Amino acid sequence: MPTIENRLKAYIETLPESKLKAAMAYALLGGGKRIRPMLGMTLLESKGVDPTPYIEAFLAVEMIHTYSLIHDDLPAMDDDTLRRGKPTVHIAFDEAIAILAGDALLTDSFRLVTQNKYLSTLQKVEIIDIISSKAGSTGMVFGQIKDIESEDKMVTIEDLNLMYELKTANLIQASLMIAGVILSDHDIKSYEDLGYYIGLIFQIQDDILEYTLSPEEFGKSKSDDIRNKPTYVSLLGLDKANQVLNTYVDTLNTLIESLYIKDTVIHTQIKLLLNRRK
Amino acid sequence: MPTIENRLKAYIETLPESKLKAAMAYALLGGGKRIRPMLGMTLLESKGVDPTPYIEAFLAVEMIHTYSLIHDDLPAMDDDTLRRGKPTVHIAFDEAIAILAGDALLTDSFRLVTQNKYLSTLQKVEIIDIISSKAGSTGMVFGQIKDIESEDKMVTIEDLNLMYELKTANLIQASLMIAGVILSDHDIKSYEDLGYYIGLIFQIQDDILEYTLSPEEFGKSKSDDIRNKPTYVSLLGLDKANQVLNTYVDTLNTLIESLYIKDTVIHTQIKLLLNRRK
Repeated sequence: MPTIENRLKAYIETLPESKLKAAMAYALLGGGKRIRPMLGMTLLESKGVDPTPYIEAFLAVEMIHTYSLIHDDLPAMDDDTLRRGKPTVHIAFDEAIAILAGDALLTDSFRLVTQNKYLSTLQKVEIIDIISSKAGSTGMVFGQIKDIESEDKMVTIEDLNLMYELKTANLIQASLMIAGVILSDHDIKSYEDLGYYIGLIFQIQDDILEYTLSPEEFGKSKSDDIRNKPTYVSLLGLDKANQVLNTYVDTLNTLIESLYIKDTVIHTQIKLLLNRRK
Repeated sequence: MPTIENRLKAYIETLPESKLKAAMAYALLGGGKRIRPMLGMTLLESKGVDPTPYIEAFLAVEMIHTYSLIHDDLPAMDDDTLRRGKPTVHIAFDEAIAILAGDALLTDSFRLVTQNKYLSTLQKVEIIDIISSKAGSTGMVFGQIKDIESEDKMVTIEDLNLMYELKTANLIQASLMIAGVILSDHDIKSYEDLGYYIGLIFQIQDDILEYTLSPEEFGKSKSDDIRNKPTYVSLLGLDKANQVLNTYVDTLNTLIESLYIKDTVIHTQIKLLLNRRK
């Protein structure tokens, strides 16, 4: 979606020249799939609302996603040297700059919301509340800690669900709930549920693909961040994992019907995301 | 100020049990002087407004200050093992948890503002805009990068001023400007100036004290984070540094008069902060 790239570039252009700007540009404009902003924006489109005036609210979610990748890749965390086929930020720059670039993207994301000219002040407050709640100590960051803490423990399927919810679903939920705020829709809880199932299904599919495909087919190295970690397949076995997956897909489809977004542009978007067979 | 400590504790109590919560509590309740919230809150008091209902807006600034200390102390940054006489967060816990505790404090700080029951929605948006602008890629984080980039370069007194403004003055400015928002005061620019001079004077005094006192008198080890770094004294010499300091103190006093806060509680607070002769 060229608008997303252009607006992210425009934001980067406002920054003073420094290694910080360079690192932020490197991470933010480095070819992300923009899954999170796309979902919220296509939800608006599906409801007949042009998302363009409100785009900053969705970019904020993308910036938070990007910061979380930068920090996750750090040596003290997952210690990844490659991301999207390119050196990670702390390799291309250095660790200090990677930490700070993440901090800056996170902090600035809230300002993208406050500075938007089309959202009402109440919408801005609601959106910032959603973002900080889904990204902070009860959301995404909590998921990272759960992940770390799970390494020395027996993990149940409930633990894994919570981790997937926190680490993956939460930012998808944020984007869809932001759309709900803009729609002045009383059904925000349903959008939250929608994001929950999209995130969970995506992760369970990942677990299954990881198990059934060769590393080459799977497309990412099999994998520094998944190896030795519990997955749906390792906890339930392949058959049961597929069975649970199908239940969730059914629930998702029911939700899509009840939200009157079947066969709309967000439905297409969801299918693109979840019909990966590679 | 017991209210600040109690409210910070109350916030920590809302978090789910984990190492994240423990690390956040360790850092946030670890005996900070609360300079930044105190300045904004006593400004309100000086203008006859009880700050208590709005305290979360000032705690947000303290949380951002705390996150910045956690990340600054990391091995890839200043590599400090002690802070306020206790092991730094990455020593007491580990690096991954320190990174995440900082991320969580930063993210949650915005939610403290959105969840406050006494600020208007417009005030919340203005406050969040101020905080993210003063803390982000054009504020405090930019100051950290300037600091890092200055290590291999000739630094001018203008560079040093900008660094002190970004790294120290910016969060003081944020707190005072937040008070300005709550006062619905059109003089927010003057409060921003006030914060600028408080921050700068504090840093220049630090440079002078560091030079004139023995390490024991100075009270902190002479100093991992100042050693070999340019200071007012190293750039201007002691006499000239004192001279510039006095000019700034004069400007500050003029500002204090013009803002009608002379001999009020914030004036006392400023004097407590700046009349250190340890």
